[in-house]
Amino acid sequence: MGNRCRLRTAICHGNSRRCGYPGLRAHNPPTFPITQRSRRTYICGVKQPPHCQMTTHKQDAGAQATQMNMLMDIKRGRLSHLSITRCVFNQLLIKSGRALKKMSNTAVGVIPSHVNPDLQEERDRASFNVTELTNIIDGGAEKTLLRKRLEKLIFSDPDFQKFPDIQTFGTNSEFYSATVLKSTKLFKLRRELKWTDEEFDIALRLGGQGHALGLQHGMFIPGLERLATEEQKAKWLTLAKQYKIIGTYAQTEMGHGTYLKGLETTATYDPKTQEFILNTPKISSIKWWPGSLGKSTNHAIVLATLVIKGKKYGMHPFFVQIRSMTDHTPMTGIKVGEIGARMGRMTSDNGYLILNNIRIPRENMLMKNAQVSPDGSFTAKAPNQANYATMVMVRVGLSYYSYQLLSRGVTIGVRYSAVRRQSKLDPKEREPKILEYQTQQYKLFPGLALAYAIFFSSRSLRMKYMEAYQEIKNGNLQKLPELHCESAGMKAFCTDNMLRELEIIRQSCGGHGYLNASGIAMLVTIAAPMVTVEGETTVMYLQVARYLVKRFANASTGQQLDGCTAYLSMDHAAYMCPLMSEDDCRNMSRLCDIYSYRVYMTVSRVAKQLQTDIMNGMPQHFAFNKNLVNLVRAAKAHCYYSVVKDFSKAIQSMQASPQTIKALKTLCCFFAIHGITEESGDFLETESIGLEQLQWIKRLQGTLLAEIRSDAVALVDAFDHHDISLSSAIGSYDGNAYERLFDSAQKDPMNKEEVHPSYFQYLRPFIQEMNKAKL
Amino acid sequence: MGNRCRLRTAICHGNSRRCGYPGLRAHNPPTFPITQRSRRTYICGVKQPPHCQMTTHKQDAGAQATQMNMLMDIKRGRLSHLSITRCVFNQLLIKSGRALKKMSNTAVGVIPSHVNPDLQEERDRASFNVTELTNIIDGGAEKTLLRKRLEKLIFSDPDFQKFPDIQTFGTNSEFYSATVLKSTKLFKLRRELKWTDEEFDIALRLGGQGHALGLQHGMFIPGLERLATEEQKAKWLTLAKQYKIIGTYAQTEMGHGTYLKGLETTATYDPKTQEFILNTPKISSIKWWPGSLGKSTNHAIVLATLVIKGKKYGMHPFFVQIRSMTDHTPMTGIKVGEIGARMGRMTSDNGYLILNNIRIPRENMLMKNAQVSPDGSFTAKAPNQANYATMVMVRVGLSYYSYQLLSRGVTIGVRYSAVRRQSKLDPKEREPKILEYQTQQYKLFPGLALAYAIFFSSRSLRMKYMEAYQEIKNGNLQKLPELHCESAGMKAFCTDNMLRELEIIRQSCGGHGYLNASGIAMLVTIAAPMVTVEGETTVMYLQVARYLVKRFANASTGQQLDGCTAYLSMDHAAYMCPLMSEDDCRNMSRLCDIYSYRVYMTVSRVAKQLQTDIMNGMPQHFAFNKNLVNLVRAAKAHCYYSVVKDFSKAIQSMQASPQTIKALKTLCCFFAIHGITEESGDFLETESIGLEQLQWIKRLQGTLLAEIRSDAVALVDAFDHHDISLSSAIGSYDGNAYERLFDSAQKDPMNKEEVHPSYFQYLRPFIQEMNKAKL
Repeated sequence: MGNRCRLRTAICHGNSRRCGYPGLRAHNPPTFPITQRSRRTYICGVKQPPHCQMTTHKQDAGAQATQMNMLMDIKRGRLSHLSITRCVFNQLLIKSGRALKKMSNTAVGVIPSHVNPDLQEERDRASFNVTELTNIIDGGAEKTLLRKRLEKLIFSDPDFQKFPDIQTFGTNSEFYSATVLKSTKLFKLRRELKWTDEEFDIALRLGGQGHALGLQHGMFIPGLERLATEEQKAKWLTLAKQYKIIGTYAQTEMGHGTYLKGLETTATYDPKTQEFILNTPKISSIKWWPGSLGKSTNHAIVLATLVIKGKKYGMHPFFVQIRSMTDHTPMTGIKVGEIGARMGRMTSDNGYLILNNIRIPRENMLMKNAQVSPDGSFTAKAPNQANYATMVMVRVGLSYYSYQLLSRGVTIGVRYSAVRRQSKLDPKEREPKILEYQTQQYKLFPGLALAYAIFFSSRSLRMKYMEAYQEIKNGNLQKLPELHCESAGMKAFCTDNMLRELEIIRQSCGGHGYLNASGIAMLVTIAAPMVTVEGETTVMYLQVARYLVKRFANASTGQQLDGCTAYLSMDHAAYMCPLMSEDDCRNMSRLCDIYSYRVYMTVSRVAKQLQTDIMNGMPQHFAFNKNLVNLVRAAKAHCYYSVVKDFSKAIQSMQASPQTIKALKTLCCFFAIHGITEESGDFLETESIGLEQLQWIKRLQGTLLAEIRSDAVALVDAFDHHDISLSSAIGSYDGNAYERLFDSAQKDPMNKEEVHPSYFQYLRPFIQEMNKAKL
Repeated sequence: MGNRCRLRTAICHGNSRRCGYPGLRAHNPPTFPITQRSRRTYICGVKQPPHCQMTTHKQDAGAQATQMNMLMDIKRGRLSHLSITRCVFNQLLIKSGRALKKMSNTAVGVIPSHVNPDLQEERDRASFNVTELTNIIDGGAEKTLLRKRLEKLIFSDPDFQKFPDIQTFGTNSEFYSATVLKSTKLFKLRRELKWTDEEFDIALRLGGQGHALGLQHGMFIPGLERLATEEQKAKWLTLAKQYKIIGTYAQTEMGHGTYLKGLETTATYDPKTQEFILNTPKISSIKWWPGSLGKSTNHAIVLATLVIKGKKYGMHPFFVQIRSMTDHTPMTGIKVGEIGARMGRMTSDNGYLILNNIRIPRENMLMKNAQVSPDGSFTAKAPNQANYATMVMVRVGLSYYSYQLLSRGVTIGVRYSAVRRQSKLDPKEREPKILEYQTQQYKLFPGLALAYAIFFSSRSLRMKYMEAYQEIKNGNLQKLPELHCESAGMKAFCTDNMLRELEIIRQSCGGHGYLNASGIAMLVTIAAPMVTVEGETTVMYLQVARYLVKRFANASTGQQLDGCTAYLSMDHAAYMCPLMSEDDCRNMSRLCDIYSYRVYMTVSRVAKQLQTDIMNGMPQHFAFNKNLVNLVRAAKAHCYYSVVKDFSKAIQSMQASPQTIKALKTLCCFFAIHGITEESGDFLETESIGLEQLQWIKRLQGTLLAEIRSDAVALVDAFDHHDISLSSAIGSYDGNAYERLFDSAQKDPMNKEEVHPSYFQYLRPFIQEMNKAKL
């Protein structure tokens, strides 16, 4: 038997509580069995106050009184999760008078409802009014009120309160269920409270990631609006808007995403029965990735190549019922399911769909833009350019979504850096906040500046889109190519840079940044797909590059360009770096000139190289491929310039106090300066700046880091993310990072049992075997 | 009631199989109920061949015969997972003669045991012998054989075969159980087969991520060896080596990681009872992160500040039993558990530990390096520098581990890019492999080159370490500071760049890279903590920078430096860029000169700035903080130079065929060239190269991309990762990416039920309510 003591100074092969061996025992006999008691208390948390009761014998009178007060507070509902964690933690430490003395900074029985003083100190030093900036971000004080009202409404619902914990700890299946519940609740609220689109959008954002039925408003309804005839809309759009049918938009296939012409699903018209036969010819043709398709939807708009009498007529949309309205089982001939676990939490149940010669009536082709008559003759309107407008809209939306994710991440990173203390700078002082370190600022502030830059730039793009969309609807398509270029570029630029900065911020949180409870780890994995969905980054940049090369060719023929490529008409021969002194480096107009010259030179070089290659006899596609890397480089340069310009313009036209303007100006200048130092090779190579200017710029960068540092917490507070939306133990408003981390760990399913089942299954038998092996 | 038909062309509010509504039905009535049958078949996969039986009526004779053959094959165990997937998929398509014809490239009943022709084509064009390179990587042909032998042994065990699926689909708890089983199996094999350390290391690597008991050999046994007296070793080390006790090393606390002096756990000596009292004074002092601590271990080496009679004596190690040997419950006064879900799969059960005035005998202090006598007097040997050697060893190990992870990632990325086809280059040709695109090469090949660079550089560092360790053990500490610098730098450089390249590779796989089944998504999340564990990147770089600044000061006094900083003694005034023509850019020796001059200039500038700042009256710590960003920059430049040099040297001294040497030389040159273009600003700013040279280098980069492209698959094949180690649907050796993706989805727990429980709980009631709302 292994459970007898062997050696006093060796190992107690038994439970000390039973065998009495003092090899390891508490200073004083514990007043309650920690193992059993504390475990339950931790797990049950706030919902079960009685677990926070403690035995009172052997405790001093002060501690008893404190505990009684806490019990009363629990009954009055005044104790937070956090307080209970502390209360339980304190139980562990209440054992001796000495322990009590040591605990001065986590004082026993004091409810830590206060903000961490390290964080409060930062707020007290802010140079501007945070609420003013919040109002600007929301779009006015009344919009802030509207958001707050919606926050109050939504987060008073226990299901929404619980959501972050399910997101952090639940299985994929549990999380999916929670997102179904969330979607249905939001849909009901929308209908009951007659929310405007704006209100619904705000509500969606507040709830954070995960909407099982997100594609209903995201793609299904807009798809019907865009593609269905009036008659079809009367039938289906109404049902969709009333949530009587739940749908999605099934386009991407396993073997084909970006290149739509490659899609393989077929819709073959059978004039005899006046039906379309929808078919998935091979594995690569399986519809793969559509959101909400895996488990949620009962209908889908399916994109397929139309075939009539053996001839192909391009891609068209078909309205297909995929699951029974009675029991949700797939319709005959349909195989549908989830595509499998993903890197991050599923935002919805992405699915696959196999159509096995499914027949649908002729009337189920969405025929707004093209028609098939009963006898199988095909007619199509001129390609509907308004369709592009929808794609543009989605991309504009993703740019703004990048702001949402990044501003959450940077909130977490900056707040945590203000409460985490580590190492020594001044040997005579205590460990400084890590926010003091220049390297930490260098990790966080580019992300902070980028968040604001994306916000203002995507707001500007949204306004351009709204304007152009009206014109497009009226048949004026003049602005479409530029809008297409700008939205593709912004989508690529924002998602790409946002993801990179989020990962840097995650790393800036040290080890804790790897815990889901930190919130930042989950943001990274949620942001990860954004660079590939709705237009992969490189493909997007190449679309921008194509437009730039075309516009450059126009400019070369003397055409005076306007819009976002006006700079291509510049008199580049007259360019001289406008920075004459270090002071000039704060001049946004001069910085913009430097940026525009950089793009000009980058575009002109690659365009000329392309031309040379082709004139030298290289096939066009070969020449294009040979210059792809430089084309992407040109597109990136263009996008960075656009965003710097938009950010700067937004501040110029802003109605706000001088203090707020000043804080934003500093950030905007840092954004521009940082872009130059990060790609200094490009700026030097194109001779947009010289070596001396680069030295000035680098020096200024150091100065700006220090300037931003004093407003950093205020600048993230201004985003005003609710703690439930943030879902971060280390980035919450009160800054009580360690207590919340500890609290979070107690809720993890791995801590459900004190001893994990695998101990009995594998570990104990193994150790027993090893013990026998010696004998 | 909603389950009656309403409109023919609208929605069937019922199950078509029951209501007979033809709004959506299969072309021919299906020969088996797809929903039920196929679902089960998919889920059960290869283990349950009978599910692959199919009804035979209404099928043509050929299909019947094929299916019979398949059944026979299943019985003979010849059908792979994949085949069954195909077989099931084919059932869906066997319905009509037309479908059969269309399926020519996934021919019915043919077992796809062949390699995807797109991948085979790549292998056929390789310019060198892959096995030769594999042998070089393994360390000789006999080592390759050893690895293969171990692969065969381990992967013939069904538990190891199942492991990747549990990793992809299991809950954290299920995965943890699997890692316990895996650890115990490997420990048993080690003991039974008397594996050498080398064999055990290979076995550990093969098994991939996740070892619940990984810290036993990782930290616990080495810790005892390093810290325990001979007497203590006789007692505990033996038990640990025989796996009679399972342990870990508990150092990091919630509030303190890198800065060890900040650790707060105390060990107070009580001379009366001759015991130490171990205590966790506050929340930030909770031990947090130690691996294997959460659920697995029963013992730990706990690091705590020694306190005797109120005086502190620094950090010392204590041997503490934390769980009962009988039932694994925590010992009295101890609270221990898991720290909560993480971004990626847990490599082990990282845990927390609260010590509530635990008493342990005086003899449980590990006293090799410092002793406390019974009366409480403290004596210590001179600080044991050999301790540093252990830290160095761990960092060297992490550099090599970076190679492991990155080489897996790039294998996945390159193979997938050889079988994925998309868009058009030449309009007359079919969609090209995405590997053809220059932009795709630009995403993959830097990672490929880095994997080889890290491999050779970490191998060289390991050899230096082995050499130095012998000297250190003999009391010669001369090499320690340099070894410390090099290992810190390599740890930072390798983990940081490896993670960045992995993420770029993930993105290069498009949407599928976000699926866990891709393998690459999991690699990213498994690699994510590497940049913070065992020395956070920035902290590591700053240690390198400090060493560089010190050595620069030495060189400034005329000292001739040797070792890794010899270049600081160069006659920098005599430097001229050694590139006289484009051809020179392939000359590794000249490229190395450019790199070393870049470091020299970067170090000298920041060192001089520091000096100036201090001479201008800035406090030293302030000046240091002001220059942190530039110090990190200098350290990075040094590390890149070291790795380029090591890579180049390794090829110079390599015994291999000219073809293999040539392929590696191309890669090495690309690695150096790419480093210059990525940080061209630095090279231009320090005038290591001029604008003309940069143009040559960029042009050469394009050429090298095209050269590497033809050997890319061979270069990743040479890593020779077993499919089970890779655990990737899209990167497997046979290149049947889509079939494996589809197969993988069927195993996802979300597909266990055709209709998810949340439908009954939330979705159906919601839709019903919405339907009533209209009435």
